[in-house]
Amino acid sequence: MSAATKNLSKNLDTIFYPQSLAVIGANNVAGTVPNDILVNILRDNYRGAVYPVSPREQSIAGVKAYKYAIDIEDPIDLGILVFQSSVCHLALEQMGQKGIKAAIIVTAGFREVGGKGLEREAQIKEIAAKHGISFIGPNCLGVINTDPICHLNASFARKMPEEGNIAFLSQSGALCTAVLDYAQAKHIGFSKFVSFGNKADITEIDLMRYLKDDPKTKVILLYLEEITDGPGLMAMAREIISEAGKPVLMIKSGRTAEGAQAAASHTGSLAGGDDVCDAALRQAGIIRCGNIEEMFNTAIALAYQPLPKGDRVAIVTNAGGPGVLATDAAVSEGLAIARFSEDTTKVLKKSLPNTANIKNPVDVIGDARADRYNIALSQALKDDNVDGVFVILTPQSMTDIENIAQEICMVAGQSEKPLYASFMGEADVAVGIDLLQRRSIPHYQLPESMCRSFAKAHYFKELFERNADPPVVPKGLNKAAALKVLDEASAAGNSHLPEAEALKVLSAYGLPVLDHAVAGSKQEAVELSRKIGFPLAMKIVSKEVIHKSDAGGVRVGISAEKEVGKAYDSILKNVKAKQPEAKVDGILIEKMAPDGEEVILGIKRDPSFGAVLMFGLGGIFVEVLKDVAFRVAPLGPDEIDRMIHEIRAYPLLAGARGRTPKDVSSLAEALARLSQLALDCPQIEELDINPLIVSDEGQGCHVADARIMI
Amino acid sequence: MSAATKNLSKNLDTIFYPQSLAVIGANNVAGTVPNDILVNILRDNYRGAVYPVSPREQSIAGVKAYKYAIDIEDPIDLGILVFQSSVCHLALEQMGQKGIKAAIIVTAGFREVGGKGLEREAQIKEIAAKHGISFIGPNCLGVINTDPICHLNASFARKMPEEGNIAFLSQSGALCTAVLDYAQAKHIGFSKFVSFGNKADITEIDLMRYLKDDPKTKVILLYLEEITDGPGLMAMAREIISEAGKPVLMIKSGRTAEGAQAAASHTGSLAGGDDVCDAALRQAGIIRCGNIEEMFNTAIALAYQPLPKGDRVAIVTNAGGPGVLATDAAVSEGLAIARFSEDTTKVLKKSLPNTANIKNPVDVIGDARADRYNIALSQALKDDNVDGVFVILTPQSMTDIENIAQEICMVAGQSEKPLYASFMGEADVAVGIDLLQRRSIPHYQLPESMCRSFAKAHYFKELFERNADPPVVPKGLNKAAALKVLDEASAAGNSHLPEAEALKVLSAYGLPVLDHAVAGSKQEAVELSRKIGFPLAMKIVSKEVIHKSDAGGVRVGISAEKEVGKAYDSILKNVKAKQPEAKVDGILIEKMAPDGEEVILGIKRDPSFGAVLMFGLGGIFVEVLKDVAFRVAPLGPDEIDRMIHEIRAYPLLAGARGRTPKDVSSLAEALARLSQLALDCPQIEELDINPLIVSDEGQGCHVADARIMI
Repeated sequence: MSAATKNLSKNLDTIFYPQSLAVIGANNVAGTVPNDILVNILRDNYRGAVYPVSPREQSIAGVKAYKYAIDIEDPIDLGILVFQSSVCHLALEQMGQKGIKAAIIVTAGFREVGGKGLEREAQIKEIAAKHGISFIGPNCLGVINTDPICHLNASFARKMPEEGNIAFLSQSGALCTAVLDYAQAKHIGFSKFVSFGNKADITEIDLMRYLKDDPKTKVILLYLEEITDGPGLMAMAREIISEAGKPVLMIKSGRTAEGAQAAASHTGSLAGGDDVCDAALRQAGIIRCGNIEEMFNTAIALAYQPLPKGDRVAIVTNAGGPGVLATDAAVSEGLAIARFSEDTTKVLKKSLPNTANIKNPVDVIGDARADRYNIALSQALKDDNVDGVFVILTPQSMTDIENIAQEICMVAGQSEKPLYASFMGEADVAVGIDLLQRRSIPHYQLPESMCRSFAKAHYFKELFERNADPPVVPKGLNKAAALKVLDEASAAGNSHLPEAEALKVLSAYGLPVLDHAVAGSKQEAVELSRKIGFPLAMKIVSKEVIHKSDAGGVRVGISAEKEVGKAYDSILKNVKAKQPEAKVDGILIEKMAPDGEEVILGIKRDPSFGAVLMFGLGGIFVEVLKDVAFRVAPLGPDEIDRMIHEIRAYPLLAGARGRTPKDVSSLAEALARLSQLALDCPQIEELDINPLIVSDEGQGCHVADARIMI
Repeated sequence: MSAATKNLSKNLDTIFYPQSLAVIGANNVAGTVPNDILVNILRDNYRGAVYPVSPREQSIAGVKAYKYAIDIEDPIDLGILVFQSSVCHLALEQMGQKGIKAAIIVTAGFREVGGKGLEREAQIKEIAAKHGISFIGPNCLGVINTDPICHLNASFARKMPEEGNIAFLSQSGALCTAVLDYAQAKHIGFSKFVSFGNKADITEIDLMRYLKDDPKTKVILLYLEEITDGPGLMAMAREIISEAGKPVLMIKSGRTAEGAQAAASHTGSLAGGDDVCDAALRQAGIIRCGNIEEMFNTAIALAYQPLPKGDRVAIVTNAGGPGVLATDAAVSEGLAIARFSEDTTKVLKKSLPNTANIKNPVDVIGDARADRYNIALSQALKDDNVDGVFVILTPQSMTDIENIAQEICMVAGQSEKPLYASFMGEADVAVGIDLLQRRSIPHYQLPESMCRSFAKAHYFKELFERNADPPVVPKGLNKAAALKVLDEASAAGNSHLPEAEALKVLSAYGLPVLDHAVAGSKQEAVELSRKIGFPLAMKIVSKEVIHKSDAGGVRVGISAEKEVGKAYDSILKNVKAKQPEAKVDGILIEKMAPDGEEVILGIKRDPSFGAVLMFGLGGIFVEVLKDVAFRVAPLGPDEIDRMIHEIRAYPLLAGARGRTPKDVSSLAEALARLSQLALDCPQIEELDINPLIVSDEGQGCHVADARIMI
């Protein structure tokens, strides 16, 4: 292992698979965290050796205790620190001296409490760095590894989960306790289960990197309250999806302003805009979930069953009503109701009673027993027109619930297509549900959840296969020229670049600015107008006049030379009246853009994700209808294409209602250039092109107004 | 009881509260429907007398059996018919002879199987009518009444539910079995539970009328696959809400075209458009639910706890993460996070540990026991700034789950504000959840469901209080004139009324048509143009030319007399070229409307709800963005107001982005007149005013084009 790789791995293999570990700060008081952790490790059959460290005890839970970590005669792989926060730095120093390179710091009372906690966190980070210790925490529930060769429950959770192929990483420790309880009841197993707390050293990105190559993990779940390194998170998710084919599911709380505020007072996290976060996660291929239930509903679909090859589903039910509800739900989730082949229709007609409905959704009727389910399911799975099967059961008086569950597991095991189940009800159907859950058939109480989970599995399959050409650096960029303009503005102490300067920056990046020049006098304006040609627009140039139109500083549609002088005077007069103190630097003479659809392009900076691009249709669409698409820069051609198609008003660009289709490819080109500009010039805080006028196909697009804030 | 009232009641009191009943067609074969029903009635402690009727048996389940219903020596209130469908008519005839006036026909094999089943259904309806028998079914699971004075389980459900104040009515019998199982596990009780099957006699509306006055019922739930009498359903729901203050919750399946088709092959139901259904149910105050879980989540909130007086909630949690998730969910559902009074802040600061978060959401911290929950909950409920409280628990190692649940029930019982709970997890928290459910604290596995249910309860409270002025018949209607035009068109065999005729109809109903006349010659056109004034529009008048613009039959913006003749010729030439066979009746000369916002108004007929009004903004808004509002006619002023505000683009009418506000009150007036027209003239199949041009406030609106299909 090279030094670089080793550094990237942050000793995570030692954290998950230690051969020996010390619980530093353990005690004998049952029901306290330091005791619970030690007891959990022992009770849950850890396969290595455990060394309690306690200044006061001779032995804890029957195991010999050591006064200090350095007293232990054997080498120690992992230190689990449970001392109170005020002495953690001392214990960590001793761990360093002992040569321990990996730690889990469970103790709370650091950054999350503010004040002195911040200092303590800085202190432990420094000590850890000095000794080359990687650590999880502080302020966490701990780490669980269900792999039988290690079987480590280094947490104060009430119980150890079953083994499984889902990994769960959480910023909130308390949520972990709820998740473990929820999962146990549904026989959902985990490969690794990590509460990473304040992530002062090892972050969710480090853990994701480890799980990417973990053969025990098939699906990765994340609960986050703050995203510190958005681009890093996105890159890691992409790597996991494309290289390992593993889906990444995530709950990001603090969606609303109020929620973000609650998160801030809880963990001190700073949130960006949630619409940006939502777009960024989608862009990275992360499946964002709204809550724990939705996350696990999706996770079991992905972890238990093959991915569907398409979106055509068959529904098999013993009751018409739920069949209708499931059909509604499937279609609402964008799935297609499969049309059976002739062969399937023939077999179902022959084998099912007359009163059964042999069309999809297949109703095997209320008195169906396991044999009828078997016929319908086997045949549906065999049908080339079917990509996946939903089986629904209601507990009617004749229904042999357990046998049917057995039959379902058997049939599913013989097919390479996914099969999901919904046994509706609760108490009576429990025996069947339990059986399905133990045998890895995803079960859902509601047909709606079943359909949504299938849709997400299908989405992931498409995501995995979809085009994702890497970002291309556009040709003909003059970075130096753009930087020069920005640096000069910065040196002059201007935070707002007037349009003429903004156009220089855009022009340097090859964005389609219109022919323009600044006139210092009426005479010059007339001369320039002759050179530029008509129709043209005239706009005030002044650092102080930010809202040019409001100040009467804009005249458009000037169609002849004779109007230029008059317009010049009237602009100066208007501005003088509205903002007498404003220093005027001239009048911008700019060619008018040809007709077209007005769109808005923008750059903004998000505290979590950095450079963000914005796109929407002009006028009411962005401001009234909030019809806007966001992406994190840089973005490749396919992603730009998806961005443009994302807005609801896209049909207007494509030529809806007899309009002529607009030049979408020139719009895509403009977005690519803007993306690069955002990356190259981080001093641009905000940039608006409002509007960019997109003409008919082949006619390009043109910047009609622009504004930059630095 | 008057005859009319008695007829309206359909003997439902006898169906729910019979003193004696006969199970007609019972047998001794355990596990069959005829046996299960009899056994259920006996086992579940029916307080009246049961008489089995069977041609073959001497006794069934230990009770003496009779060969025929007429053999029974005592009077019988209710007959439960379980014979096979082919002999039901004979049994029903005998029931009539015996003087039985109320029946539940459980037997399947009627309308739902088509063919001979349709005949059988017609036959039993006839016999029942002859003898004055009211009946539920056929093709149903039966009826349950948990009221201890009767305690009747006249169904073949596996179990009788607990007593409660929720009534459930279902078109699907199989769904009932799932619902009963689901509800039992959650200790959800029912007042009445009815599977009404094919509703050949007693409909859901009859049942709703009964439940309106049922003192045991507080909330009414409905599962429907088809709505036969939409206006009747709406009127009954309104009556229940306004007179009895009882909420009506409903699942209507067949939302999607595919689902509707599945429902059709299941029950033979014919569905209208789902967007219309959605609007109609909202208009009637019915709370539409997407699935069973959402329905019961809402029902327990409404049935167990007081309605919230406002939307300000306090959240009390023992874990920060779930507190953030709940805050997000509350805000997403439109609730407000309460700001505590100074008093509350003082008390929480004094009584909770330093590390607790005393702002809303209150975090009582992971080691909280019942006492801390008590303090936070009591104080939050006392606070005048709080309308309701959410309590969240995660099962941490110190959490005394059962004690906390006890404390919650106690505190909730002392307040008149609603309190809902979410104990996150499953197995560990089960003991607490069970306790909450038994003591009528609404419990939700997810904070999201908790917030949504609260939002619905708050919605119902506002619904109950909101203005609902009855529809007003507008003044100055000339129904006779409108009918004359329509009758003439009908007599002439025309299904499409050309614009000039459509304008006559609209004009008769006082809609703001523009000055217009039809010219038969070029000369007349010029004369008329002088009379009408400029600018004006000229449009072809021909029954065959439906798409006037496409045929080149429209010229707008004609601003002077000299253009009229030229336009006349060019229109005729265009139409002749495009549709040489079309008979031309003249050219419509119509004043141009003043400037304004284009909107579309329409009438259509829905198979379930009848006359439906449509409204949206013109151009792309309806066709591309699908931004449309629907309402069932008639509608009062408040409902018209809500309709206009419902579209996303409403801000454009109100004056967004510096526009001038438009004359919304004239638009409302136009909708009121259209509503009356739709009611008065049922022969209008479809009507479009596209566009109606709404001018600035005080300037009115004008019909610029119209089309009627009869």
